Amino acid sequence: MEPHGRDLICTQDWSPDELRAVLDLAAEMKRDRFSDRWTSLLEHKTFLMFFFNPSVRTRLSFEAAATELGGHAQFMTPSAGRFKTEEQAGETIEDAAQVMSRYVAGIGIRILEDKVPYYGAGDEMVRQYAQWAEVPVVNMADDRFHPCQALADVMGWAEWLGGGPAQPDYDALRGKKLLLTWGSGALARSWCSVQAALLIASRFGMNVTLAHPPGYELDAEVTGWTKDNCSASGAAFEAVHDPESGYEGAHVVYSRNWVTPDAYQDGQFQKQAEIEKAMAYQGWTTTAERMALTDDAIFTHPMPVDRGSEVTDEVASGPRSAIYDVAENRLHVQKALMACLMAAGGDRNRG
Amino acid sequence: MEPHGRDLICTQDWSPDELRAVLDLAAEMKRDRFSDRWTSLLEHKTFLMFFFNPSVRTRLSFEAAATELGGHAQFMTPSAGRFKTEEQAGETIEDAAQVMSRYVAGIGIRILEDKVPYYGAGDEMVRQYAQWAEVPVVNMADDRFHPCQALADVMGWAEWLGGGPAQPDYDALRGKKLLLTWGSGALARSWCSVQAALLIASRFGMNVTLAHPPGYELDAEVTGWTKDNCSASGAAFEAVHDPESGYEGAHVVYSRNWVTPDAYQDGQFQKQAEIEKAMAYQGWTTTAERMALTDDAIFTHPMPVDRGSEVTDEVASGPRSAIYDVAENRLHVQKALMACLMAAGGDRNRG
Amino acid sequence: MEPHGRDLICTQDWSPDELRAVLDLAAEMKRDRFSDRWTSLLEHKTFLMFFFNPSVRTRLSFEAAATELGGHAQFMTPSAGRFKTEEQAGETIEDAAQVMSRYVAGIGIRILEDKVPYYGAGDEMVRQYAQWAEVPVVNMADDRFHPCQALADVMGWAEWLGGGPAQPDYDALRGKKLLLTWGSGALARSWCSVQAALLIASRFGMNVTLAHPPGYELDAEVTGWTKDNCSASGAAFEAVHDPESGYEGAHVVYSRNWVTPDAYQDGQFQKQAEIEKAMAYQGWTTTAERMALTDDAIFTHPMPVDRGSEVTDEVASGPRSAIYDVAENRLHVQKALMACLMAAGGDRNRG
Repeated sequence: MEPHGRDLICTQDWSPDELRAVLDLAAEMKRDRFSDRWTSLLEHKTFLMFFFNPSVRTRLSFEAAATELGGHAQFMTPSAGRFKTEEQAGETIEDAAQVMSRYVAGIGIRILEDKVPYYGAGDEMVRQYAQWAEVPVVNMADDRFHPCQALADVMGWAEWLGGGPAQPDYDALRGKKLLLTWGSGALARSWCSVQAALLIASRFGMNVTLAHPPGYELDAEVTGWTKDNCSASGAAFEAVHDPESGYEGAHVVYSRNWVTPDAYQDGQFQKQAEIEKAMAYQGWTTTAERMALTDDAIFTHPMPVDRGSEVTDEVASGPRSAIYDVAENRLHVQKALMACLMAAGGDRNRG
Repeated sequence: MEPHGRDLICTQDWSPDELRAVLDLAAEMKRDRFSDRWTSLLEHKTFLMFFFNPSVRTRLSFEAAATELGGHAQFMTPSAGRFKTEEQAGETIEDAAQVMSRYVAGIGIRILEDKVPYYGAGDEMVRQYAQWAEVPVVNMADDRFHPCQALADVMGWAEWLGGGPAQPDYDALRGKKLLLTWGSGALARSWCSVQAALLIASRFGMNVTLAHPPGYELDAEVTGWTKDNCSASGAAFEAVHDPESGYEGAHVVYSRNWVTPDAYQDGQFQKQAEIEKAMAYQGWTTTAERMALTDDAIFTHPMPVDRGSEVTDEVASGPRSAIYDVAENRLHVQKALMACLMAAGGDRNRG
Repeated sequence: MEPHGRDLICTQDWSPDELRAVLDLAAEMKRDRFSDRWTSLLEHKTFLMFFFNPSVRTRLSFEAAATELGGHAQFMTPSAGRFKTEEQAGETIEDAAQVMSRYVAGIGIRILEDKVPYYGAGDEMVRQYAQWAEVPVVNMADDRFHPCQALADVMGWAEWLGGGPAQPDYDALRGKKLLLTWGSGALARSWCSVQAALLIASRFGMNVTLAHPPGYELDAEVTGWTKDNCSASGAAFEAVHDPESGYEGAHVVYSRNWVTPDAYQDGQFQKQAEIEKAMAYQGWTTTAERMALTDDAIFTHPMPVDRGSEVTDEVASGPRSAIYDVAENRLHVQKALMACLMAAGGDRNRG
């Protein structure tokens, strides 16, 4: 299976064919979840989940994915060891990654928010692990990217706009409009999910409208890639700065709270200050009234949903809400990803 | 297998036939622990263990049970996520339970003592998860009930008073006397295990004597159900308030420390105050002298045992101590329970 | 398989034949890592990992080992339960060990450094668990010994000085010189790894040179056994107290920071005081210049390596560094150990 032995840190690093290979396998796996075509692919193999930040959905879905492939996902946090930092003696990434590679068939890493000293430091660390590891490294969400969420997003949208559950039609996304809008709330969320969504949507030919209050700009390099992706496929990209105009004609509405570019100061994540800033922007909420302006759009969200702030209960639990299907797809895309990257060959752990 | 797809929150919610179906399967599983009749029942399936409170026996036995059935039990604590509470924004039970249902074949929850703001709040939460989950929910101990402990208790007693290990005779329990007595000690334990024991003992036709110091009354609704169960089977129920009289003629002696009905104040579990109150009642200890008053009773306890306070070493390690057998039965009843509720069908996780 | 059903707390407790049985199986397992000769040996069985101290390598390698043998290793910390201590009521080792024995096929324990009140207390606790448990107990590092590290060490050295990866030649170690030297650094490490290395090296016929600053003596009983082992095989033992003379003619160089015999005071591990004492001894670093004095020695270390203090990057990442191979061997020796102790028989968990 391809793309064997690679790392997945950002979808932008992969070719469209590689992304489609994973997504097509994910749909097959969803159609026939416990088929013996997959249940032995990771038999007796270990996937290491290294969580600098806690997680529910990511851990549950990766660990279940490994189990469904016949293997096992181990859970580890940095408190388990003495890792070298600027302040303390300890093990280097060179050593940690090379030893891990002797034991496991793949390594997943999650590092963002308060666990990094400046924006981008988490992504840099994931790439350092990938540099030293002899097995594939999967980004389970860093401060810049969340590629597994992006794959689950686009699979869910292609199901809802295409042939239904486990029948994603990726051609159905071409020329459709994604509204990705900032949402009110007190959660001070990182940029990884929304940036991953911008990149994958634009990669699959969607028109992208990005809406946020002034001062909530995302990573300029990522929005630049998004515009390039749109240009390459002849799709449109626009940015708006009010909470309503973007809904017009949308097919997919994605609302999500995120922090400002000033979220890191003096090596610290300024969570409380970001919550206070966000409080100034009430009313950036996806409501039924706003959804009525769209072209019968589905509602999507990477979860956890901050109901009442990012979106009303009526929309989140409504008939066009794709949130649970997208969440479920985390399992299927991650199974497919692990199968493509780690099964049967490509590293020293092969049988 | 029956009772497929149900939740188990309190044994009182189930019919006698349903309880016996689980218990009979548990005995078969104990007789032939690694038979291939069971070792694939949960193959590639995940059971989620959601622990608001820590646990040794419950975690060990559930996780081993899943492994012995060919599946995997995942360990999660609430610190893994951002769950909505009265004080903070976060994920609702509606969302959490529905997403979990996409990944796993069953959900176990433990919540009691200092993790709930008032008596009954834990049981309410478990029932909310059960309402929203699309897979079976198992109560792994809440502030009111501990049904898995109850099943292990009654299985152990029916072995000791019946045909021996893995040969429980539930008819042998009819008309036998259970003394369930408060025990001295500084552990401020919740009511779940003793209430679960009262309910199951009375359900299986035992005469029940409840002994405790004044002010240590249990949940009136639960003792009411216990009396009703006794009446229905023609058995006797009595309450005594001294540490010795109840031993007369007992066949099963169960001693255990527990808190007063005032344990929760102002939304907090008053552990230290409860320990101090309990210090006023020394001498509520099961001793060999008191055991000599019984009809050759066995000693039972849900563990961990507070030796020297609840019971003497002589009794806890003596020839009529059933404590390790009861503890072992946690494994077997939970295997049987998971097999009945989760194996082969009943939810979207079926192969 | 032999030595079935035993505990492994210190290699000195085992016969040479028993040690070789495990090592020979480990080499076979390394040569054919996923052979179906081993992948079902622990099928549906549980190994309990009880970590009083956190760990990366030990947890990763034990959990992967169990997975590769078809079983599952459960992770537990003492915070999971209410264990009896001198200060608080709780469960005794008698009870904990006997209940664990009902659920699992083997128990691993790690306890050292700040989790023990005086030197030797950790080893005493592991032996108490072994006394009460009905299943094998494996020392996953206590304050005196680290037998799994010792087995991995000697296997790695016998590969490098013998036939290469997975081709260890234990005869090649006879008469070779091990320099085990204290290393500079701020990690206040316990004695277990270095003491385990002294014992195993002397058991396999190596000449041993122990180098450390004055005041850094190890456990006199352990160095006594080491001298006895050397005498029995006609090998030499010497102690030196300068950072350089020991390198002369060495075949294996092992540098490692460790604490003084005064590390425990008033029931507490004096980490900060030990770090300050160690600061007085700069320059106890394994450098390329010092390695040039040896007989083309390999460099070995139990990891995590404190680069720049215990050893330079040039040596640790150099062509004669055996550190990753030794680390990898943790997996193989532990698989072999679990297979020998726990597979197919010897305890109540047998199928």
